[in-house]
Amino acid sequence: MSKTIAVIGLGLIGGSMALALKCFEDFEIVGVDVSEPTLRFAAEHSVGDRVTAEAGEVIPQADVTILCLHPRGITRFLEEYKNQFKPGSLVTDVCGIKTAIMEAAEVLPPEVDFIGCHPMAGTEFSGIEHSFPELFQRCHFILTPRAESAPAHVALMERIADYIGAADVVQTTPERHDQIIAYTSQLMHIIALSVCDDAELFQCKGFEGGSFRDCTRVAALDVPLWKELMTLNADALTQVIIRLEENIHAYRVALEHHDVERVTAKLEYSSNRKRRMNLPGPGQVSLDLDLFQ
Amino acid sequence: MSKTIAVIGLGLIGGSMALALKCFEDFEIVGVDVSEPTLRFAAEHSVGDRVTAEAGEVIPQADVTILCLHPRGITRFLEEYKNQFKPGSLVTDVCGIKTAIMEAAEVLPPEVDFIGCHPMAGTEFSGIEHSFPELFQRCHFILTPRAESAPAHVALMERIADYIGAADVVQTTPERHDQIIAYTSQLMHIIALSVCDDAELFQCKGFEGGSFRDCTRVAALDVPLWKELMTLNADALTQVIIRLEENIHAYRVALEHHDVERVTAKLEYSSNRKRRMNLPGPGQVSLDLDLFQ
Repeated sequence: MSKTIAVIGLGLIGGSMALALKCFEDFEIVGVDVSEPTLRFAAEHSVGDRVTAEAGEVIPQADVTILCLHPRGITRFLEEYKNQFKPGSLVTDVCGIKTAIMEAAEVLPPEVDFIGCHPMAGTEFSGIEHSFPELFQRCHFILTPRAESAPAHVALMERIADYIGAADVVQTTPERHDQIIAYTSQLMHIIALSVCDDAELFQCKGFEGGSFRDCTRVAALDVPLWKELMTLNADALTQVIIRLEENIHAYRVALEHHDVERVTAKLEYSSNRKRRMNLPGPGQVSLDLDLFQ
Repeated sequence: MSKTIAVIGLGLIGGSMALALKCFEDFEIVGVDVSEPTLRFAAEHSVGDRVTAEAGEVIPQADVTILCLHPRGITRFLEEYKNQFKPGSLVTDVCGIKTAIMEAAEVLPPEVDFIGCHPMAGTEFSGIEHSFPELFQRCHFILTPRAESAPAHVALMERIADYIGAADVVQTTPERHDQIIAYTSQLMHIIALSVCDDAELFQCKGFEGGSFRDCTRVAALDVPLWKELMTLNADALTQVIIRLEENIHAYRVALEHHDVERVTAKLEYSSNRKRRMNLPGPGQVSLDLDLFQ
């Protein structure tokens, strides 16, 4: 008898997840969405083995439920369906913040497991029409299990990560996840947005190269989603922005004073850090710390 | 009788230029470099129709001389060889700043033309071993001719741009070039470097996604080159850094105050600017200006 994975929310990530999970072990993939056009698109493009608008009919049968909604959508869904999940089943998500999600998951009864998940993958587009099964290829797959999460459920998440092509699985706490993600993801979006706020933006056409395109790529973001991600992680994000402001300011002061020696020393320092960061190999990271702090 | 293009300096850009110019009209491409390993690599990989270490033997015969050196290398080369260029010939360059280069070119005698050039192409690598003929595909090709530059020479530069695959040719003044490039190129490098200065850099392995990789890609830069580019354009670069500091700071304040309404409004504003920036079509730029200032 086949088992069921319910993918709740068929946007870019949910749609790609349903596509990537096709034929995973003996699971049937059921896509759930409230939008009629999204369901039609999903059905026409085989996003999931079947699709439905009725979460309430799928949840009680699902062995795994993957919540691919915006943060507040996840909170609302957990609240609404908390007593309908199958006992012994696993609920997980794909959301870019974890502390608020793990807190929201506390409404679940003790017989329903929850493991926070954040596949570090995405594009600057949103919606099912941009989903594709290779989205998760070589991404980092981050898990924030509860202390009491079943080892079998953690192992299942690791098999899912492997099946959809993730580069590795990283386990951490929700708090640490949110701190680091403020730096590696949210700050990159603040930068891209701030660069686009420059008064010269529209005058610079014809003068942009690869670095400008790469840095600003993510600025055309999904506002309702990022509003939630950023404001739910505002304290951690504020801290990394302050650190960036200090580091940018230090470059500005050196340039303002035409201090060629200082500029050169700073370029050496920062570019070496980047080169070190790219060095492969496990264990490298902690070894490098003392050298470059 | 064939004509000659001398490519002076066979690094990433010069090497790629020599490769891209292969069979351009009836020109022979002569690669010039002072480094023996570079010349050997160039000869073995047919970077140029022939290569030599003797600039003094090539310059007097060259119809076009393309200076692919670091800014101060260009200044020194122009000073050293100013009386050896072929009368009526064109000297040009590929350097990322233009005011200092155009000033340095004033040492040339009146019978030698100079047109500043900046193909907006590059990678995070340097050296002839990373050069490739497709480097200039779809790049913007910026020209800063003198007021007295021969129209035939401007036309020749346009044919070169077309031949090596540039998307378009943009003519501007050296001062305007340096102002805009401070924003679209140099600032992107300051950002990448500053992000790598963060204390969390080495702890974030396993948590980085596409936006982090894209934003920091150019941080592993060629220090001697960028030291010159940045310090020779320090005033313009300082100004755009100040503007970025203000724009980042505004995001920080909104987040610090947990001002969800303000964060949302800012995300709408900035992401719309990015979307508008991506709109295709000539004439679009100036029309959009009033809407988004």
